[in-house]
Amino acid sequence: MPSFLPQLDSLSLAAQVAQMVVVRASGYLFDHQIRYPAWEPPAKILESWVADLGVGGVILLGGSAAEVALRTQQLQDWAKVPLLIAADVEEGVGQRFAGATWFPPPMAIAAIYQHNPDLAKQYAERMAAITAQEAQAIGLNWVLAPLVDVNNNPENPVINVRAFGETVETVSQLATAFIRGAKPYPVLTAAKHFPGHGDTNVDSHLELPVIPHNLERLRAIELPPFQAAIAAGVDSVMSAHLQIPALDPIYPATLSHRILTQELRQNLGFEGLIVTDALVMGAIANGYGANEAAVLAVEAGADILLMPVDPAGAIQAVCSAVEAGRIPPERIRESVERIWTAKQKACAPPLKETTSHAWESIQPSVQAKELVAQLAQPTAIALVDAILQDSQRVHTPCLSRLANQSLQDNRNLVILDDALERDLVGNYTPAVTIPASKGYQLQLIDSHTPIDALNRSSVPQQPTLLQLFIRGNPFRGSAGLNQTAQKWLNFLRDTEQLQALVIYGSPYIFDQYVPSLPPNVPYVFSYGQMPQAQAIALEALFSMV
Amino acid sequence: MPSFLPQLDSLSLAAQVAQMVVVRASGYLFDHQIRYPAWEPPAKILESWVADLGVGGVILLGGSAAEVALRTQQLQDWAKVPLLIAADVEEGVGQRFAGATWFPPPMAIAAIYQHNPDLAKQYAERMAAITAQEAQAIGLNWVLAPLVDVNNNPENPVINVRAFGETVETVSQLATAFIRGAKPYPVLTAAKHFPGHGDTNVDSHLELPVIPHNLERLRAIELPPFQAAIAAGVDSVMSAHLQIPALDPIYPATLSHRILTQELRQNLGFEGLIVTDALVMGAIANGYGANEAAVLAVEAGADILLMPVDPAGAIQAVCSAVEAGRIPPERIRESVERIWTAKQKACAPPLKETTSHAWESIQPSVQAKELVAQLAQPTAIALVDAILQDSQRVHTPCLSRLANQSLQDNRNLVILDDALERDLVGNYTPAVTIPASKGYQLQLIDSHTPIDALNRSSVPQQPTLLQLFIRGNPFRGSAGLNQTAQKWLNFLRDTEQLQALVIYGSPYIFDQYVPSLPPNVPYVFSYGQMPQAQAIALEALFSMV
Repeated sequence: MPSFLPQLDSLSLAAQVAQMVVVRASGYLFDHQIRYPAWEPPAKILESWVADLGVGGVILLGGSAAEVALRTQQLQDWAKVPLLIAADVEEGVGQRFAGATWFPPPMAIAAIYQHNPDLAKQYAERMAAITAQEAQAIGLNWVLAPLVDVNNNPENPVINVRAFGETVETVSQLATAFIRGAKPYPVLTAAKHFPGHGDTNVDSHLELPVIPHNLERLRAIELPPFQAAIAAGVDSVMSAHLQIPALDPIYPATLSHRILTQELRQNLGFEGLIVTDALVMGAIANGYGANEAAVLAVEAGADILLMPVDPAGAIQAVCSAVEAGRIPPERIRESVERIWTAKQKACAPPLKETTSHAWESIQPSVQAKELVAQLAQPTAIALVDAILQDSQRVHTPCLSRLANQSLQDNRNLVILDDALERDLVGNYTPAVTIPASKGYQLQLIDSHTPIDALNRSSVPQQPTLLQLFIRGNPFRGSAGLNQTAQKWLNFLRDTEQLQALVIYGSPYIFDQYVPSLPPNVPYVFSYGQMPQAQAIALEALFSMV
Repeated sequence: MPSFLPQLDSLSLAAQVAQMVVVRASGYLFDHQIRYPAWEPPAKILESWVADLGVGGVILLGGSAAEVALRTQQLQDWAKVPLLIAADVEEGVGQRFAGATWFPPPMAIAAIYQHNPDLAKQYAERMAAITAQEAQAIGLNWVLAPLVDVNNNPENPVINVRAFGETVETVSQLATAFIRGAKPYPVLTAAKHFPGHGDTNVDSHLELPVIPHNLERLRAIELPPFQAAIAAGVDSVMSAHLQIPALDPIYPATLSHRILTQELRQNLGFEGLIVTDALVMGAIANGYGANEAAVLAVEAGADILLMPVDPAGAIQAVCSAVEAGRIPPERIRESVERIWTAKQKACAPPLKETTSHAWESIQPSVQAKELVAQLAQPTAIALVDAILQDSQRVHTPCLSRLANQSLQDNRNLVILDDALERDLVGNYTPAVTIPASKGYQLQLIDSHTPIDALNRSSVPQQPTLLQLFIRGNPFRGSAGLNQTAQKWLNFLRDTEQLQALVIYGSPYIFDQYVPSLPPNVPYVFSYGQMPQAQAIALEALFSMV
């Protein structure tokens, strides 16, 4: 069988090191659509990274599924060695790329696990299978999931509902089910964030969290899900930007030889790809210098350098470190061998049907009918429905404030972090359309709404359906939103305008709000925030009318 | 030369009538992305309209340029006779389909015409060429532009800045330049809305406006731009949903034999396609009955029935009218002959390069590199830039409130109609990012913002950059938004917090606000609202600092 990968020895040192680099790019096709110009290069630079530097992969954010199908085609077209193309599709491909299937956060499945472990495992396995298949359909070959962090700190702003649960058992069972589900597809999985990011209340996107636990505790709580994932055959493990003094008093996990090589590679016996979390994150780039961080990560044992600040600079720095004898050449060679193994699985071009045994370029063209036949199929949408239904919590009081009321001219007050974010709430989503169809008037509060002096004179008295979209979000945190929501909730409750409450997102916020609700206020909690979750939650609510 | 269109005689009456129908569909690929379920059918129904009923065309709304490229491929794949695929891309393909070039509204070019007619005509011509070429690149073959309405009523909620000016000369010159520009491409143009929609202050999407002018006035103002467009070779003319008693005391233009046949076909000698405006619009569908409206439109002389409420019902009703002798069969035959002529121009499949003289199916696949080489090219973006720059109005006072002030902790107050609408303002657009980079804090007001009790105690005192996105919008009108904006403007002015003002959109609103501004408040007016307009306006503003 002819290999589509070049012989390792035919690659220069720089070419080998370049294969260890995964750069970030926008999923949109056009430069003028780039949303994060600080992180996402324009096409000319991206093409030079892929075609000339020869980076090993790209991580994509933004764009719809259809656009990404074209974008991955363009990227593979530029590459001489087929690329790993990764995306943070923890909640299905539709979480990031509109059109594909969008699953609720993993913690919804963990909630189902509490009363029906077998069903929950089945859900996680099927969710992974669908995610892997849809990723493949649009040219992604590296699903940066599952999280195996144990979210045992409800204040965790960055992991939170992204975790497959709060206990070792739940997380291990569901994460391994996820890995099993993705296994049959030519798509890599990633267990993250090593050695465990569940017990922190600091967002590592902003600063470096410290995990103060001793080794015993780490071996009891944080590490077992990684062991389970490795045993289940996970393809890669992503490091965390965390300081864990019990394992390494000096370096954060991403740069720590003790953590990546001694603990993960040697003690846990992991033979797949070790990938850093994004090296541009402040905790790393600012603390160590951008290029030095890349060298330290390779020294520590990383095979893949994710999103270095300056790819050419990082490659150059690692090459210099090899030439200076600081990094042995075998260190590079081992990583590239692992990358080759991964690419054999994830990048094999399809055997062309017409000409026997001729290899086609990966994705020669994109066909609408193939996309439509592979994404968001009825079985996938039914699975999302089942997970949402089975994890939803509904309170139907005997004497509900919703019953026997005219809904005309009631207020549909939606509070969300950011009305300018695209995917959750729009004029066409059920959180808006269903109440509107019953006569509710939409009002909207987000973190940019001015005037927060709430009093009887400033807000006309109206029976109010309050819908809160609130979960722990990386980069933003939910503290500010939580305060605004709490203020409105109290105001509406105290003025007896609160007719019904729906919370989408955080079960922790939900648990915090419920005790203060009058008993005749019906409520629904959904783990999901996407349109399908809104439809299911509001259907449950209005079925009471 | 082999024709790719079947012989007319081989088609049944129903098949011929079906060719006269253009149905509406979402540009998105997936059913779960449909935003207007009342108007946009799911794939199964759409496929049956195209494949089984054999409708003649589809009008698309929604989705990005990349998605539409796939969507048009899918539609042509379903069709036995190649489809006309239309879109309301009056302001460039990017106005509707993200990724392509988005031009400012035509009235921006009309403003340039006032001081440089030749340059303005050149702009209109180049805008049309780019729009036609980009339409073709994503499989659209019918550009529903240019407007030839003379916007001589500043209160016009539906035409407004969509018009190529306020005088017969400006509109005629620029609209014909547009038609010339599109001419070399295999894409149809449409002059609209016959016999002239410029002098009304009622939105015909909501009710039927009446144009009370006599015939003399119509021949002096409304009709000449249509005559000019016809002389320039426009491919189609779209009717208006208007009542014009001077021309027809009974029927609105869309259903009027006097207007469509006697005036347009006979008096003006137009030989191309006469297309109705959307038959689902309330003024028509409610007034005459959905299927009867289709029959009346054919009787009146329409060749294309745009968006009938029920395509199968409309086809059936027209067939019955023919069989009952109410419509002569030649009436249908003439229309389909015109449609065939149009399709010869707009739907010819590309000659396959490899096999000589073999016809390829239209759009066999979509290639990222072809899209990237054809949409939003640097010359197109430069043209948008030039139109925006040349039509922008800037006031730089000697003693500007912006000069020598710290901008840290200032307020960037953005007022727009609907924060949930996607395209204008986002966290990544210049209206947000440029002020943020200077230290401004974003605040956002839209029509859903609760609490409008503005007073010193409810709004913390802060120097404020006020950015208004306000233009006449079909369906919504700008009256409510205008009131909100006026209230904030007055409040900020009276409390001396107004540091600078940018208005994006309506020159009429701008003219209304300017006299009340203190002389030391700098301001910018831009016809454009898109991100590129924001960048140019804010650059002009902050260059004063």
